[in-house]
Amino acid sequence: MSDRIYNFSPGPATLPLEVLQQASSDIINFDGSGIGICEISHRSKEFMKVAAEAESLLRELLEIPDNYKVLFLQGGASSQFFMIPMNLLGNGKKATYLNTGTWSKKSIKEAKLFGEIDVAFSSEEDKFNRVPREDEYTVGEDSEYLYFVSNNTIFGTQFNTIPTSQKMLVSDMSSDILSRKIDVSKFGIIFAGAQKNMGPSGVTTVIIRKDLLECASENTPTMLKYKTHAEKESMFNTPPTFAIYIVGKVLKWLKQNGGIAAMEEMNREKAQLVYDVIDASDYYRGHAERESRSMMNIAFNLPTPELEARFIEEAAQVGLNGLKGHRSIGGCRASIYNAFPREGILKLVTFMKDFEANNPA
Amino acid sequence: MSDRIYNFSPGPATLPLEVLQQASSDIINFDGSGIGICEISHRSKEFMKVAAEAESLLRELLEIPDNYKVLFLQGGASSQFFMIPMNLLGNGKKATYLNTGTWSKKSIKEAKLFGEIDVAFSSEEDKFNRVPREDEYTVGEDSEYLYFVSNNTIFGTQFNTIPTSQKMLVSDMSSDILSRKIDVSKFGIIFAGAQKNMGPSGVTTVIIRKDLLECASENTPTMLKYKTHAEKESMFNTPPTFAIYIVGKVLKWLKQNGGIAAMEEMNREKAQLVYDVIDASDYYRGHAERESRSMMNIAFNLPTPELEARFIEEAAQVGLNGLKGHRSIGGCRASIYNAFPREGILKLVTFMKDFEANNPA
Repeated sequence: MSDRIYNFSPGPATLPLEVLQQASSDIINFDGSGIGICEISHRSKEFMKVAAEAESLLRELLEIPDNYKVLFLQGGASSQFFMIPMNLLGNGKKATYLNTGTWSKKSIKEAKLFGEIDVAFSSEEDKFNRVPREDEYTVGEDSEYLYFVSNNTIFGTQFNTIPTSQKMLVSDMSSDILSRKIDVSKFGIIFAGAQKNMGPSGVTTVIIRKDLLECASENTPTMLKYKTHAEKESMFNTPPTFAIYIVGKVLKWLKQNGGIAAMEEMNREKAQLVYDVIDASDYYRGHAERESRSMMNIAFNLPTPELEARFIEEAAQVGLNGLKGHRSIGGCRASIYNAFPREGILKLVTFMKDFEANNPA
Repeated sequence: MSDRIYNFSPGPATLPLEVLQQASSDIINFDGSGIGICEISHRSKEFMKVAAEAESLLRELLEIPDNYKVLFLQGGASSQFFMIPMNLLGNGKKATYLNTGTWSKKSIKEAKLFGEIDVAFSSEEDKFNRVPREDEYTVGEDSEYLYFVSNNTIFGTQFNTIPTSQKMLVSDMSSDILSRKIDVSKFGIIFAGAQKNMGPSGVTTVIIRKDLLECASENTPTMLKYKTHAEKESMFNTPPTFAIYIVGKVLKWLKQNGGIAAMEEMNREKAQLVYDVIDASDYYRGHAERESRSMMNIAFNLPTPELEARFIEEAAQVGLNGLKGHRSIGGCRASIYNAFPREGILKLVTFMKDFEANNPA
């Protein structure tokens, strides 16, 4: 597929080519059924198998304990921002949030509609250039959970160690799920929009401890209770079948390529290749503090906005696409999730060195 | 594509083959961009154009007036069941609902969480075998809207004329949108899950009169306010990009095939071919009363459950798939939306006649 380019988009993002090639065929005739994957009934035995396999692979890869349900929901991670406090808080209940970026800030706003929210740490004044150390915040005894965004897509920061807390953890892992090993048993809820590390946009994976399914108040709309979806294996209403199908194929690809341990090793190496260029001179400056650097999103600046614009434009000309940083901090950003190929990183690294040589500050 | 079969599934349902063929290519390399349609940023100029074209085609085909917004949301039609009353009711406000099937019943349940609901008609005791005549219900002066499901997928009934009312109409058109001409200006909100007449599952089209965007109370979660999505052209968060892409392609196909007038004529003829077989003998019995018959879903019974099971099985053997009726009424059902080919209907009709001859009651 020589006509494919390297796509550094933060999400929707690069998917494994072999998954797309399979989908290209299944979209017209799924697995010899004579019906395309977008057209097949979600109640058919063929699709039930697709959904069951996706869940089973996710359980295996993340070693999800039996006392957790896996849900495939719609509405994006943004819908979890309110569904979590709507289900878990209410009536003077409290929760602790760490404000490490745009998405945690948005989830704090929604959570305040349903309970008392303690924002125990914020790096907003420093343009979210880091996540906290453990000694920088406390979680109150009366807090139901500690909420954090494990990887901050926009700012290129990541919790390099998962917070420890007496309280259960709740985490938005949209941009780093499946990129490294985690201990699911420490969490009440883990959720992730698929469009970064799992599949296309349009499906959100929610991993929820079963006892939490019972927390919603009676007058919560049916579709907003986790229990509704848990009881019907995410088929209370028509699920986003195509997106779930792709997630299953991506998980299969991930397993075939060594599982999470192999991904983590490769992600670490891929990111290090770029950080090494950043650290080699003063020309490129990483946005994140070193201890908070993300393996998934690398946000960096050049000496001037003019050079950044030229960098992005010339990179696109050689097939390195989507390197523009988020408008909230400007500059450049390379998003390099599991499926982003190492060869694309090598090409970027070479381009960065050449660009620096050809465009002195 | 001789290996494709005729798929009578009620949804997800048959899509135009040429749309699938285009998608099969675009999923690997969209429009020569070097990036697949599932991988391309929703903020890219390429995808912004996709979304804008989908909206523009929908506006053109349905002749949507300028004082309406078109939204592409997630969560299925089932999420509209609560979003509508959550946004439009509250504080003792009232609405009138017509209970003509499973989906109206579910929406009544959700609406009761937010306001006072008058169920002005119900055919539940007759297994939802018909929709009301205009003289069978009244809409109170203090009612905010009249809610009805224009086509009842499960029971094969349809409002063959749209209700007239002093109050604005709100309608779930999931299973017959774009199948016939309607006057959008009579409606406050029209919504439709895409997976029957518009595209794959995972996107819901909402057509909403602009003044209604202001109705939600301040403490409504951000994602549940129509205004949030209207202000951001359905890109407040990452939209289901692939589903929107397919909807756009289906709308383009629909326009190229004569638009809604041509669809309506073809749908009427396609349905009549099946109803003619049903009416020709006592062997097949339609579930719906004649005046309420749907052009989209034809629910029918055979003399015995055993014959129905054999009918469904033998039909599948000759490439007529998905004819099993919904579990709530059993029997058989042929779902024949816009994209279901006329040749498939002819094959079904022949099969029905042969089956009757070969399997006397």
